[in-house]
Amino acid sequence: MNTQTLKGFRDFLPKEVLKRQYVLGVLKKVFESYGFEPLETPALEYEEILTGKYGEEGDKLMYRFEDLGGRKVAMRYDQTVPLARVIAQYQNEIPLPLKRYQIQSVWRAENTQKGRYREFLQVDADIVGVYSPLADAEIINLALDCVTKLGFNSKNIILFINDRKIFQTVEPKFISTIDKLEKIGKDGVLKELVDKGLSEGSAEELLSKIENSEITNSLNEIFNTLKLMLKTGIQVEFKPTLARGLDYYTGAIFELVVQGPELGSIGGGGRYDKLIGIFSGKDIPAVGFSFGFDRLIEAMEQLNLFPNNLNGNEVLVAFADSELQEKALEVSTKLRNKNLNVQFYLEDAPLEKQLKYADKKNIAYVLIVNSNNLILKNMASGEQKTVTLDTLPNEIQ
Amino acid sequence: MNTQTLKGFRDFLPKEVLKRQYVLGVLKKVFESYGFEPLETPALEYEEILTGKYGEEGDKLMYRFEDLGGRKVAMRYDQTVPLARVIAQYQNEIPLPLKRYQIQSVWRAENTQKGRYREFLQVDADIVGVYSPLADAEIINLALDCVTKLGFNSKNIILFINDRKIFQTVEPKFISTIDKLEKIGKDGVLKELVDKGLSEGSAEELLSKIENSEITNSLNEIFNTLKLMLKTGIQVEFKPTLARGLDYYTGAIFELVVQGPELGSIGGGGRYDKLIGIFSGKDIPAVGFSFGFDRLIEAMEQLNLFPNNLNGNEVLVAFADSELQEKALEVSTKLRNKNLNVQFYLEDAPLEKQLKYADKKNIAYVLIVNSNNLILKNMASGEQKTVTLDTLPNEIQ
Repeated sequence: MNTQTLKGFRDFLPKEVLKRQYVLGVLKKVFESYGFEPLETPALEYEEILTGKYGEEGDKLMYRFEDLGGRKVAMRYDQTVPLARVIAQYQNEIPLPLKRYQIQSVWRAENTQKGRYREFLQVDADIVGVYSPLADAEIINLALDCVTKLGFNSKNIILFINDRKIFQTVEPKFISTIDKLEKIGKDGVLKELVDKGLSEGSAEELLSKIENSEITNSLNEIFNTLKLMLKTGIQVEFKPTLARGLDYYTGAIFELVVQGPELGSIGGGGRYDKLIGIFSGKDIPAVGFSFGFDRLIEAMEQLNLFPNNLNGNEVLVAFADSELQEKALEVSTKLRNKNLNVQFYLEDAPLEKQLKYADKKNIAYVLIVNSNNLILKNMASGEQKTVTLDTLPNEIQ
Repeated sequence: MNTQTLKGFRDFLPKEVLKRQYVLGVLKKVFESYGFEPLETPALEYEEILTGKYGEEGDKLMYRFEDLGGRKVAMRYDQTVPLARVIAQYQNEIPLPLKRYQIQSVWRAENTQKGRYREFLQVDADIVGVYSPLADAEIINLALDCVTKLGFNSKNIILFINDRKIFQTVEPKFISTIDKLEKIGKDGVLKELVDKGLSEGSAEELLSKIENSEITNSLNEIFNTLKLMLKTGIQVEFKPTLARGLDYYTGAIFELVVQGPELGSIGGGGRYDKLIGIFSGKDIPAVGFSFGFDRLIEAMEQLNLFPNNLNGNEVLVAFADSELQEKALEVSTKLRNKNLNVQFYLEDAPLEKQLKYADKKNIAYVLIVNSNNLILKNMASGEQKTVTLDTLPNEIQ
């Protein structure tokens, strides 16, 4: 029988989920320390809420269908348009400014390729209702605090910042080319600009104009505010060729980059003062940051930033023979009350089988219950020692 | 512009999400203390994986559609069939027994009514690969430990238990009627049995036979094992008329009930030894428990079991006048490093406006930054006192 998952969709087995939960736990804690509040919206919306908001490509890649009641529905494509709907729908219940974070899956029928999935988690933090560059600075500060708390070395990370206003007079089709500077190099950019219709001279002139743009006043204000905030040691650098894909940005834009082979951007964001108000019929300013969650996990994996004991201080309580099974069960309960994560082998089995199970499951310690003593076995080193219920928790920490 | 959510779908605003996250945090911690490991599966599966597994009704209520690649896909309808697929697909990576928990949304196009939604969270814990009643007892113990840790009073809770084998010789259509005994009373059950084709005499005989069934050996074994486990004080009671809706149960079944007006079942489960193996082509025993998450939240709400400070120890740092905004910003950063959740008003605003914001947001404390001192205001009592950065955390705890 077919047991395959759909292309671009993933199962997360326990080891993977534990890692993801760990990262989310750290991020939520940081978000909440800045007063950000969690929001959740449905997986399905009326199609008309979502269509036309993400450009042509968005409408094409969106999962859409007719439900049993004949309603045209669409699956969550990002978390920003639903936020805009929420802001319009609950005007009286949600006082602005609102700082909200949102962590849910989104679905896009992308061409699958390495690191690109059709179902993936978005982790967004946004401030709605504030024009002041203080909000931009707080969002940047929040992002830097997050990666610092996750254990990234500040020397390996840069936050690039730019102002979309630098591209104000540039045709949109050229902007996406300039954004590729890092990827395809100066010659690549010039060639693509010429392919798109510029003369060689104009292409060079355009690129050099952008590259030599001066920092804008609003970016300067953000830099000044950042100096008053958390000192993470992470470099924040003006990069006039940074454009970011989305058209909806209206001011500062940023990108958080991990330097190193196979690494790269782990998140980004910016100011978008025209999008949140689309359902409310008025301009509502907003600035936000979004982590590329899969990229973040991958970077942490490569840099070895996950703690060892993600499944807690785990111990398997084993019985030396069948008659001791009941005693072992009672010991399990007692240890659980001492805040240990305790496994118990739930079938009558020889000790050897129980040890093999602990080994397969990567359980760090086995407590062997004998008729007259308790022996703690460290599964990694093989070391064994006699313990009591009272001394055991200290042996394991 | 339309800003409605679809019928049966919900937004969760911050207060609600904080409550839900709190409950999930407690449940996960208990699950992990028993060695249960988290699993996640995709929102979409090939339709053929899910159809035919939940009876006629399941196929009818399932959200199904054709994706852009012409694949027939279906949205997650429960977490048990995906678990069965995972067990078959990763036979070599997942050693049995497996204790797994899974917390994800499922979608069912139900007729909406009070407390019934089309998108809802399932919270499942299952043990796969163990026939021994020890596993049934551990699942029950786990469920009782969960509600105890959530603060339910053990006197208000009963776990009812039965053995599906008691219904072995009863026609399926009669089983669902007997299960309604509590809801429609003895006369109601007898009337429905007669409507379904039994004579009055046979109906009375059947009901009385079930009501007077003796406890089975395997239930006795479960009771004996439970005595060796955690003492939660929650009553576990044999109830021979308990049937539970799902056809796939093969042994013990249980239901966790909160006694009180408007309350009722907050979860249930049982042994199902034929379902997990459907993709593997062999019998694989399993026993599990599932919390009705919305019911659980509702019961906790009614019994007032949520802690007060779900948004942490929150303080708004306010500036008495514009020139103090920078100083207030620095104070915010320092307090955040002391593990407080710190809000900062991100626009230049008079003190009164900042206080009003704190009030609307239910922020417990405001720290007013003056040029020569810091004043902490308790927003509930209105009490004010002069503090220093060092003494402040103690004032707030």
